[in-house]
Amino acid sequence: MFDPGKPDGTNDTLKIGISNDGKPSLDHFYKVPARCGIAVKLEKNQTIQIENRFGTQVCDFWAFNSHNLHEHLSMEHVHTSLGSVLPKIGDSLVSNTRKKMFTIIEDTSEGFHDTIIASCDHHRYQELGCKDYHDNCVDNLRMALIAIGKKAPAIPSPFNIWMNIPIDQNGRIEWLPPRAKPKDIIKLKSHMESIAVMSSCPQDLTPINGENCKIQDVYFKVFN
Amino acid sequence: MFDPGKPDGTNDTLKIGISNDGKPSLDHFYKVPARCGIAVKLEKNQTIQIENRFGTQVCDFWAFNSHNLHEHLSMEHVHTSLGSVLPKIGDSLVSNTRKKMFTIIEDTSEGFHDTIIASCDHHRYQELGCKDYHDNCVDNLRMALIAIGKKAPAIPSPFNIWMNIPIDQNGRIEWLPPRAKPKDIIKLKSHMESIAVMSSCPQDLTPINGENCKIQDVYFKVFN
Repeated sequence: MFDPGKPDGTNDTLKIGISNDGKPSLDHFYKVPARCGIAVKLEKNQTIQIENRFGTQVCDFWAFNSHNLHEHLSMEHVHTSLGSVLPKIGDSLVSNTRKKMFTIIEDTSEGFHDTIIASCDHHRYQELGCKDYHDNCVDNLRMALIAIGKKAPAIPSPFNIWMNIPIDQNGRIEWLPPRAKPKDIIKLKSHMESIAVMSSCPQDLTPINGENCKIQDVYFKVFN
Repeated sequence: MFDPGKPDGTNDTLKIGISNDGKPSLDHFYKVPARCGIAVKLEKNQTIQIENRFGTQVCDFWAFNSHNLHEHLSMEHVHTSLGSVLPKIGDSLVSNTRKKMFTIIEDTSEGFHDTIIASCDHHRYQELGCKDYHDNCVDNLRMALIAIGKKAPAIPSPFNIWMNIPIDQNGRIEWLPPRAKPKDIIKLKSHMESIAVMSSCPQDLTPINGENCKIQDVYFKVFN
């Protein structure tokens, strides 16, 4: 029986919470270890900076109103708000109640991020032929929240930072390696108290995390 | 406080359930009145046929596993499954656990349906300048479920049948009138026991339901 908050398996995400409630030390560089997820509590007007140190790694990103996890970042609402599927510097990312949650204030990449594809999950890896458990972004989200004492009430559509999914004029989609450079960063300024979650996407069966399918760490820091 | 199952206002949707539990009379034509929603219970291998009698009306469509409403049709998962944002005849529509829920077995339109835009909701009409309550698809979904004794645990990304949202090569979106003809139908064959919900989209502030912004009834029937 599908339960949005319950992981289908386990990994180190359960053990690596940055603090009991996800509150970060400001200006401290944290690592989202390859194949794992981390939740971080953000205040209004703080900025989270996420770094693609190797240029090849996709970071799935979600955010929830910290006072009501039913309200969360939602890509189908972002599409309406922006009139675009490709958020750019200066654009705001909205929740499922159309509230501004973040503004992209810096993006050193060319701006190819995905907003239309579901996070990888247990069922996806089964489809791809895995017999055993495979780390996956949905479980990383669930476990990152559990690690700070929360439970996902739903799995929102993710902001897949650096994930390169072109859509052609016939609506067809391609899964390509990131168009990012080593040390590319994106800075998201927060407009509400939220819990953001990042996953160093463990997809190593397609070249979505680079041609050599090597999963890397992602780094982030929070500052005022 | 946002509650996914609780409507922000009310309309006749609460009173027009087709039966206590949404079970339909087979081969009977039902109306989804303009601006309202209807929930209908589907068995495996049944087909639901939806008709755009006037050619201009968008029908927002959602479906939930009738045994667990947390499992539902999900457009971000459909995109992965199809490698496309435009489902066509023969394509299957999957749930958030990657299960096939429906196959499109007939579509007399040119196939322009939207899978990337959130349903209209109270917050959207407030953004568009409404001072009073405006009928909206999200509330129609919530009320259609309430009318058969259920509550939405989340608002899934909708399959917006006949909604015409082209995406250009730069990711920009346009909101255009439907590319449908009067009496166009779509037939969805069901692969699991589900509760499907349809809303005759009440968006009359943009030409998404035709140039003259006139909201129309939608018709459907279920057959074995």
